[in-house]
Amino acid sequence: MFDPAPDAERKVNEVISNARRALPALADVAMPEEGTLTLCSTLEEAVSEAQWIQESVPERLDLKHKVMASIQAACRTDAIIGSSTSGFKPSELQEGAANPGQIMVAHPFNPVYLVPLVEVVPSQQCSPEQVATAKDILDGIGMKPLVVRKEIDAHIADRLLEAVWREGLWLINDDVATTEEIDDAIRFGFGLRWAQMGLFETYRIAGGEAGMAHFIGQFGPALAWPWTKLMDVPELTDELIQKIADQSDAQSGMYDLRQLEQIRDDNLVGIMRVQKNADWGVGAMLREHDQRLKAMSPEQAQPEISAEPLQMFSGKVLPAWIDYNGHMNEANYLRVFSDATDNFMAFVGVDDDYIQAGQSYYTVETHIRHLDDIKLGQGIEVRTQLIAQSAKKMHLFHFMYNRETGDLIATGEHMLLHVDINAGKTCPATDTVQAKLTAVFNSHADLPVPEGAGNAIGQK
Amino acid sequence: MFDPAPDAERKVNEVISNARRALPALADVAMPEEGTLTLCSTLEEAVSEAQWIQESVPERLDLKHKVMASIQAACRTDAIIGSSTSGFKPSELQEGAANPGQIMVAHPFNPVYLVPLVEVVPSQQCSPEQVATAKDILDGIGMKPLVVRKEIDAHIADRLLEAVWREGLWLINDDVATTEEIDDAIRFGFGLRWAQMGLFETYRIAGGEAGMAHFIGQFGPALAWPWTKLMDVPELTDELIQKIADQSDAQSGMYDLRQLEQIRDDNLVGIMRVQKNADWGVGAMLREHDQRLKAMSPEQAQPEISAEPLQMFSGKVLPAWIDYNGHMNEANYLRVFSDATDNFMAFVGVDDDYIQAGQSYYTVETHIRHLDDIKLGQGIEVRTQLIAQSAKKMHLFHFMYNRETGDLIATGEHMLLHVDINAGKTCPATDTVQAKLTAVFNSHADLPVPEGAGNAIGQK
Repeated sequence: MFDPAPDAERKVNEVISNARRALPALADVAMPEEGTLTLCSTLEEAVSEAQWIQESVPERLDLKHKVMASIQAACRTDAIIGSSTSGFKPSELQEGAANPGQIMVAHPFNPVYLVPLVEVVPSQQCSPEQVATAKDILDGIGMKPLVVRKEIDAHIADRLLEAVWREGLWLINDDVATTEEIDDAIRFGFGLRWAQMGLFETYRIAGGEAGMAHFIGQFGPALAWPWTKLMDVPELTDELIQKIADQSDAQSGMYDLRQLEQIRDDNLVGIMRVQKNADWGVGAMLREHDQRLKAMSPEQAQPEISAEPLQMFSGKVLPAWIDYNGHMNEANYLRVFSDATDNFMAFVGVDDDYIQAGQSYYTVETHIRHLDDIKLGQGIEVRTQLIAQSAKKMHLFHFMYNRETGDLIATGEHMLLHVDINAGKTCPATDTVQAKLTAVFNSHADLPVPEGAGNAIGQK
Repeated sequence: MFDPAPDAERKVNEVISNARRALPALADVAMPEEGTLTLCSTLEEAVSEAQWIQESVPERLDLKHKVMASIQAACRTDAIIGSSTSGFKPSELQEGAANPGQIMVAHPFNPVYLVPLVEVVPSQQCSPEQVATAKDILDGIGMKPLVVRKEIDAHIADRLLEAVWREGLWLINDDVATTEEIDDAIRFGFGLRWAQMGLFETYRIAGGEAGMAHFIGQFGPALAWPWTKLMDVPELTDELIQKIADQSDAQSGMYDLRQLEQIRDDNLVGIMRVQKNADWGVGAMLREHDQRLKAMSPEQAQPEISAEPLQMFSGKVLPAWIDYNGHMNEANYLRVFSDATDNFMAFVGVDDDYIQAGQSYYTVETHIRHLDDIKLGQGIEVRTQLIAQSAKKMHLFHFMYNRETGDLIATGEHMLLHVDINAGKTCPATDTVQAKLTAVFNSHADLPVPEGAGNAIGQK
């Protein structure tokens, strides 16, 4: 990173500390190890070896041109130069450049560590190969590159944002609404819809059985109605600026910036995870990214059967798992054990296909012992011992460890029965599953019976 | 309800069946019993006794005037007449009315059973008392009334939506983006932000340490940049309409309308519940509404100590609790037991104030037995027996019943220790809590030891 501002280091560290807090909560697999950020004393040093150079200087075209020239004098010819510009077209950024095709728009959205969209806007001078490489790199770090097919001022998202901004300014200027009322009109209304479907998919539903074309046709006349009149730009007087700032203080002034950022980040993580559960929209993307991380991570390789409990879960304590006492809520201990059980089932062959075919294991009994505490963001690992098994049963014992300290924080003992799902009755597991279970059981035969196994509540 | 359309009954029943599926998932308390919808054969019959009349006829002012006249010829003079109009001002709706002050705009958003916003727009002719009554009624049914302080065409939200719509049409018309790309620019980007903070609160954070006024001042010049040029209304030709419909088919045509509605509803419920956990925005409103429902519901009254297990939880199986097998996921059994434990703690005096003061009970051991299955939407009730207690311990036994069938579906046995939170050590409960526990214990002394209590896993 190169930034001549005197407080650049403090500011970037604050952003990174927010990212460290929020980003891991999106993943259900181990994240790659964090890299190193180097603050360079010259622009040349920062760009010379870089594969991707992101230009984020203020929105003045003359300044952008100057910085692009300095970058291109020092960078690799195969590097991608992305610009964070909200407004300029790539061909404008490329004017006078030594290697214009190297420059494209790559416009991210705040907070960049959580909001995945990046508008990638190439000009005619950018090669299709370069655009494909840029897209691959962004996919690879879990972003959502949206390649814009035609250069246009302000790309796509900021055109929409500008339009709302203009209307918002008018509403405040004319005392129709305050900043808080406008925000409420968004977040209690269409903002809820837009976090998961956009404008058109939402209207497709609104159009109902008559279909999209009918709906648009009907909606069309409204465009010529009087509320399209106020499209001029309101004059941004000092008075209007002050009015907005005062209203914003009244609305949000009870929170400091850090609090607002953390509230926003926790909400974003939750909203994205809801869609991850549903495998929809941004959540489907998060799942794909987990698969990518899983493939990259040696830790996630299938464990080998051995005379040790098998590692069946590795993760971190997520913000949503914390209760009002500041501790991991008890239901989330079982959630982790339940995931470990699912992974063990898959390990012995009871995977999605097996379950789709009509058989599975159901938990009939669970015994959890809480032995130590664990905190937000700490690593959790579950190791699993098979303590008994038969054709219709498996009896598992999960050890939950704090990955950093190695302390045993909880144990979960679980009895599961093999069932025919449609008949709702127990039945023997397939031979393949029984053979795998037997192999695990034999490998675990010499392990001691875990402390606490077979105990009733309160029994030492 | 009065609707002369031949298929009105089928359509309204489809909407209500969606609402029945999704709405209860927002509440953590018992919902009021469902009322009765009567389809009337005349408008007069529908409105004559109504407290609130909602007019939702097509957006033609002459038609609205005709319908308002018919309503006012038959309705109570103290009834509120709300109009669903997206565009007309209340004073326009009131033109020529017998009792103009009775009419106001009450503009809801699809899906009305989940999205809480209602823009309430009175004219000068509406009395402040009527506006207050309208607001109270909407609050009372869990909506978010936003009273708009000045009449304006299209109110607030639809001005913002229209602005985005205009830009969207241009982007499609000029082949800059497809419907899917525009939707992705929204839902992978600013749409995520707007589900929980609006435009201004988001920008307040973006403005950072320099403050809101500085940020607006800086943002301001962009309004005069070239991307504000395209503000004319694009001509909505048949060709453009067909293009939008085709792109929408390519984007969403793999889902039928019912699927899309259910995906949308499940996402909305999840997004709103994330904020309910955080006590933020729409979620803070949902919590308030729960309190309102709780106060109204006799079922939620504090149970009396008696020689019976105490009812400590009553709810429904929520969509988010269902796993890939179609069953309630095991972690959610513990979630319900954990809520019942929290309610029992509060019952004996370990409430929020007690915990804030530094002491609480922590669960150290849990034994769950699964005895029967329960399905989406079915009612759950937990009854709790205190099987042992001392100064530092309580030993609870929860019975989880299917509320409809009365079947016992699971039991939860829990050992809890009373702790000094800051010291991280056990300590005796306060005298008041001990006295209440003793009273419960004495009342439960003659109850039989529950079947399964004190058992280890697999023990009969």
